[in-house]
This record gives sequence, C-alpha cells and structure tokens, in this order.
Amino acid sequence: MEVIENPLKSEWEKLLRRPELDSQEMDILIAEIFNAVKDTGDSAVYHYCEKFDKQVPKSLVLSENELQGQAALLANELREAIDLAYVNIFSFHSAQITPKVGLETQPGVYCWQEKKPISKVGIYIPGGSAPLFSTVLMLAIPAQIAGCEEIVLCSPPNAEGTLHPAISYAALKCGVTKVCPVGGIQAIAAMALGTESITSVYKIFGPGNQYVTKAKQWALKTHVSIDMPAGPSELMVVADETANASFVAADLLSQAEHGPDSQVILVSDSSVFLKHVRDEIAIQLQHLPRKGIAEMALKNSRNILLKDKSDLLDLVNLYGPEHLIICHREESYFLSNLSNAGSVFVGNYTPESAGDYASGTNHTLPTNGFSKA
Amino acid sequence: MEVIENPLKSEWEKLLRRPELDSQEMDILIAEIFNAVKDTGDSAVYHYCEKFDKQVPKSLVLSENELQGQAALLANELREAIDLAYVNIFSFHSAQITPKVGLETQPGVYCWQEKKPISKVGIYIPGGSAPLFSTVLMLAIPAQIAGCEEIVLCSPPNAEGTLHPAISYAALKCGVTKVCPVGGIQAIAAMALGTESITSVYKIFGPGNQYVTKAKQWALKTHVSIDMPAGPSELMVVADETANASFVAADLLSQAEHGPDSQVILVSDSSVFLKHVRDEIAIQLQHLPRKGIAEMALKNSRNILLKDKSDLLDLVNLYGPEHLIICHREESYFLSNLSNAGSVFVGNYTPESAGDYASGTNHTLPTNGFSKA
Repeated sequence: MEVIENPLKSEWEKLLRRPELDSQEMDILIAEIFNAVKDTGDSAVYHYCEKFDKQVPKSLVLSENELQGQAALLANELREAIDLAYVNIFSFHSAQITPKVGLETQPGVYCWQEKKPISKVGIYIPGGSAPLFSTVLMLAIPAQIAGCEEIVLCSPPNAEGTLHPAISYAALKCGVTKVCPVGGIQAIAAMALGTESITSVYKIFGPGNQYVTKAKQWALKTHVSIDMPAGPSELMVVADETANASFVAADLLSQAEHGPDSQVILVSDSSVFLKHVRDEIAIQLQHLPRKGIAEMALKNSRNILLKDKSDLLDLVNLYGPEHLIICHREESYFLSNLSNAGSVFVGNYTPESAGDYASGTNHTLPTNGFSKA
Repeated sequence: MEVIENPLKSEWEKLLRRPELDSQEMDILIAEIFNAVKDTGDSAVYHYCEKFDKQVPKSLVLSENELQGQAALLANELREAIDLAYVNIFSFHSAQITPKVGLETQPGVYCWQEKKPISKVGIYIPGGSAPLFSTVLMLAIPAQIAGCEEIVLCSPPNAEGTLHPAISYAALKCGVTKVCPVGGIQAIAAMALGTESITSVYKIFGPGNQYVTKAKQWALKTHVSIDMPAGPSELMVVADETANASFVAADLLSQAEHGPDSQVILVSDSSVFLKHVRDEIAIQLQHLPRKGIAEMALKNSRNILLKDKSDLLDLVNLYGPEHLIICHREESYFLSNLSNAGSVFVGNYTPESAGDYASGTNHTLPTNGFSKA
C-alpha cells in the first residue's frame, strides 16, 4: 500500500487518478460479433460461446422446469440468506417509488409528470470465480417493482451448460421472464439486437469485464440504452483513531480481494491510525483465501494522510468513490457536506459488505467518478 | 408527406426507422480539438472559434456588467414572456423534488437514500438561426432548484463576439455562474477539461448539431457525464376525425420548420382526416416564413393509416416519440396504456409549442427512441 503524507492540494487530482476506460482494439471484435448476431441470430450466439467460453449452453433459454430443478438443488442456508436479502432489498426499493406530480401552472394549464416502467430490460450477471446471485437481486428486484413486462437475464454457462442453482433460484424469485446461460459480447449483442430465442430489450444493466463493458457501449449505437460504463470496484475509507483498525483493515481487504484492479484508498488525519491499519492488513492477509488477488490490488492502493477533516472532505468529494466508509468522530460533518459518493456506510459497525449483499441498499453503483454526476 | 395505408405489423419497425447516429469521420477532428484544449487551454479555444465560427469571442467569459448591459437591451415584451415562462417552469420543476427516503430494513439496520446536487454542471445552448433562450430556462432552472454550485453556460458568439440579450437575461435570471460566448466542439472540450477561463464540469447538458453531439460523447471518455446523445427533434401525432385538422397541420409544421432533419409522423384510424390534414398543410405552408426548411422535413415525414386504436397505441409504443400529441376521442385509452414517449400533449388545445416554451414542462427530452428506456 503506497503511503502518502500531506500531499499538496495541487497533486490530489494526480493522486486519485483512475485507470483509463478506453481501448480501441476491441472495437473490431465487437463489431464482428454484433454483425454475426444480427445476421445469423442464435447460431452466431452458439458459435461465440464455443469460441470464447469453450462452453456451449445446453439451450439458449432455460425452461421453467429446468430452473425449478436447479433451484431445488440449492442448499437451505443459502436459500434462506437469499430470501432475507430479497425482503430487505424489496422493501427499501419499494419505498423509493415516487407518485405522479401534477400542477396547474396557469389557469387551465395542467402539467403532470408520470413514470412508466421500461417494457423490456436485460440484466447481465458476470460469471467467473463466484456465482453473483446478489447481482440478480440488485438488478431484477427494481425491475420487478417497476413492473417491467420482460426481464431477460444473461450469464455465462457453467460446466453443465446451465447456471448455478443460486442464480436460477434468485431469477425465479425476482420474476425474471427469460433466463439465458450466455455470457460475453455475444450475450450483449443478443439482448441489443434480438435473436430467435433471446428477446431484444430497451435497456441493458449490469457489471462485467472489459469486453462486456465495451459491448454495452457499442449497444448504445443500436439505440439500446445502458446503465453506466462500469469500471473496477472502488472503496474509500475515511477514518480517524476512533475507528477500529482491525475492522477497517478487513473492509479494505474485502474490496481488494474483488479483483487485482480493485481501487482501495484509506484516508485519515491520524498517522498513528494509518500505521495500525497497515499492521492489521499484514496480519489478516495471511489468512485470506484470495490472498494473491488482494495483494495485487493492494499494490496499487493508497494510504493518504491529510491535516484535518476539511481536507478529508475535499479529497472524498474530488474522488467521488463508488463506496465510502466513514469511521470518524466527525461523521455528521461528513454526512452534511458530502457531495460525491455512490453508497455511504457510516460507523464502525456498517461494513461495505452489508450493502453488497443484504442490508437493502443497491450495489449497482457509479464507478470512475460518475457519482459526481 | 409519404402516405402509408394499413402497413403490415412486420413492416412497422422499418417504417419507423430513424436516421443513423454514428459517424466515425469526426473522431479525428474531435480528438485534435480535445488535445489542443488540454495542452493550451484558452488559446486553443480562441483558435478554433476563429477557424470554425469565423467569429472570435470578445472574451471567453462575460462579466456581470457585460451581462447586465446586454440584458437591459432586451425588448419589454420578450422579457415579460421569459419571466412568465420562468415562473411556470420553476414551479413545475420544484414540485418534482423528492424527499429523503429512509427505512429500518432490519432491527438496527437503517438505510436511506438522499440526492445531492451535481456540484458543477455545463449547459450548451446552440446558436444558429435563433437565440434559444428557452433552452437556457429548461436547463438552468433545474440546476438552480437542485442547488448546483457552478453552472457554466457555453453558446456560440454573435457578430459582436458576445450573446443575444435574451440569452444573457435568461442566464442572469437562472443564476448561471459563468457565461461563455463559445460554441462547437471547443466549447464541449473546454467544459470537459477546463481551461484558464472556463471551469471544468462534472456533467454537460444540452442539444447541438452533430459535432456538438459527437463531442459530448467524446467527453464521456474523459470521465465527464452527459445527459443524452441528442438526435433530430421528433413529433408524432395520433388523431382521429374529432381532431381539428387545421390545428394538427399547424403542429406538424411547427416541428417540420425546426430543421430539414425533423421527424414528423401523423398516425390515424381515419383516412378522411389524414386527407384533411394534408390539404391544410398545403395551405398553411404557403404562409410559413421557414417554408423551405419545413418542405424538406415533410419530404421524409410519414402519414400512416391504421385500422384501430389498439394498433395506433402499439405503433406509438414501438416508436417512442420525443413529443406525442393525442387528439383522439379515446384519449384516456392512450394515456392509460402508453409506455414510451418523452412529453405528451393531450387534446385539441394543447400544442407541442406550449411545452417548448412556457407551460412549465421541460423541452429537453429523449430522441432516437430513448424514451423507451
């Protein structure tokens, strides 16, 4: 972890720089796949699944029976955890429904604002090292509450050409209307353009690797909306010596182990506390199953000492973190004056992981400083 | 106006096709200007103003005194019209403020959602054939209500290197903090990257020609947000023989005269009414000051006959128009079942022009079918 003590304000922007978003090279590949899916539909999707994933889906759409069968395989403990998360996420998001706003601006001139659900949405659930069933909840529950008629889910197939029981269970629970064991650029192309089996949608949501992210931006050109260009996950922790160094270390590691490109930044006005956290990280790192990944992420992470709460606040607002944890005696100062952050976790007993899974708030959040806008 | 009677449902999508968004050629020019503005700031902005607009701004930022001086030149009648529009737009948008949403999702787990203003916003006001003071109101009033700290306005300079009195007056009234007589790609680059005189912002709003639109999409790569990729303006009218053919013709012409690429579509379940409107258009067109432009737009516009209200509704939802006028005896059927439209105008006495200027609703709306998402 790089340690930076009292950097000049003029250097902050450089210090907080994120990895670049763009890469032109992928465009040719993405154009090829979009064209193929446009021309030959399902068969192009199968072709690219085999080519890139070395894994062919059993079928492009799982039937209700197949989903029920898989969901039945889910361990009780995990099913109960998903049920609890569902209740919390559903109630917090239901509370966000806004009523129709109507006004007679001049005699006889009646204006109103009314929101309608997006008829057809697509949600992308990354595969990789863990089944991201929590992302199914975070994306499909709002669609279910809004009343979207069609909710199409795409996620890379497992070794059996189907999906993990937890994904199938969550998809059924959230009323997903079409579940497709398809991942990568071909999944985004299929949801943008439509094929014989996969319905085209009006807006595509969800995280993904750089190929998926770039493919979503390409989908924009086909008049399909996307949520946001998602970058690597980010955590900033603002803490002073009233924080628990062991907890803060665990929070930082929980983000670092997401992936080698995770952005982890700890800022404090106490150099003693920063030292304590570094010591704790060294200890906890030894017991981490994903130690290798966390170590790589920590290499790029920063540890910044600033002189007072006002500088701490300015730095947070300049960075606009996806996740912010506040463990500082002046927490109300930060809460009142904070402008830019995706999700904020307040106090020693509110880890980011609570929001990642089950507290009720959403984990689909702006990275790359998009919380500023 | 092309007349299409009872097209097959399988042909609807083709029938409603919009002009393509993308063009790769501009990228090289845009990259050049962004790089120049990054390297040499203000002097690059002056350089490209001279090169493209043949018009150098008097200064890159107009002082409060200069703005007051220009605003004083504004004719009384126009000032009063702007004042009235301001009141309506301000009250309708103030009513849309949503409160903090808080919930205890589990004992001791308190989650809340809170919205913060974007600290720094940029608004682009196109130049061209008319001073778009109404766009100043539509973009700056919401920023003023939200409490954005910095509101930067860019608009192409007039022959005096400054701005039209109506733009200056509206900017002062809406609390714009920096007014820059700068247009084109260089204005977007300056607001995205910042220069000695022009503040960089977190999000850029506003319409513009294809260069400005493409430059806004480029700004995304510099981690600056944009509102939407704006396409040509669109109006769809759904009417039957209870509508006033003369009013509908005027509505269609008011959109057609925006520009040669305006999208104007009339759909009806009455062929007699469609004929009446075409006759009315022919008459009114003769008296139109912008006849040439309207005629060009009408060449690409469509006049579609369908068999019943259910087909009319499906067609509207498939197209997702920026503006929709409903003059049909079954207006409540359409209102209840409509999914996709930006702003909707209901009845014979509610022209789109009311919303363009002064009824209180916003005229910054999704084109290119983005109302579907």
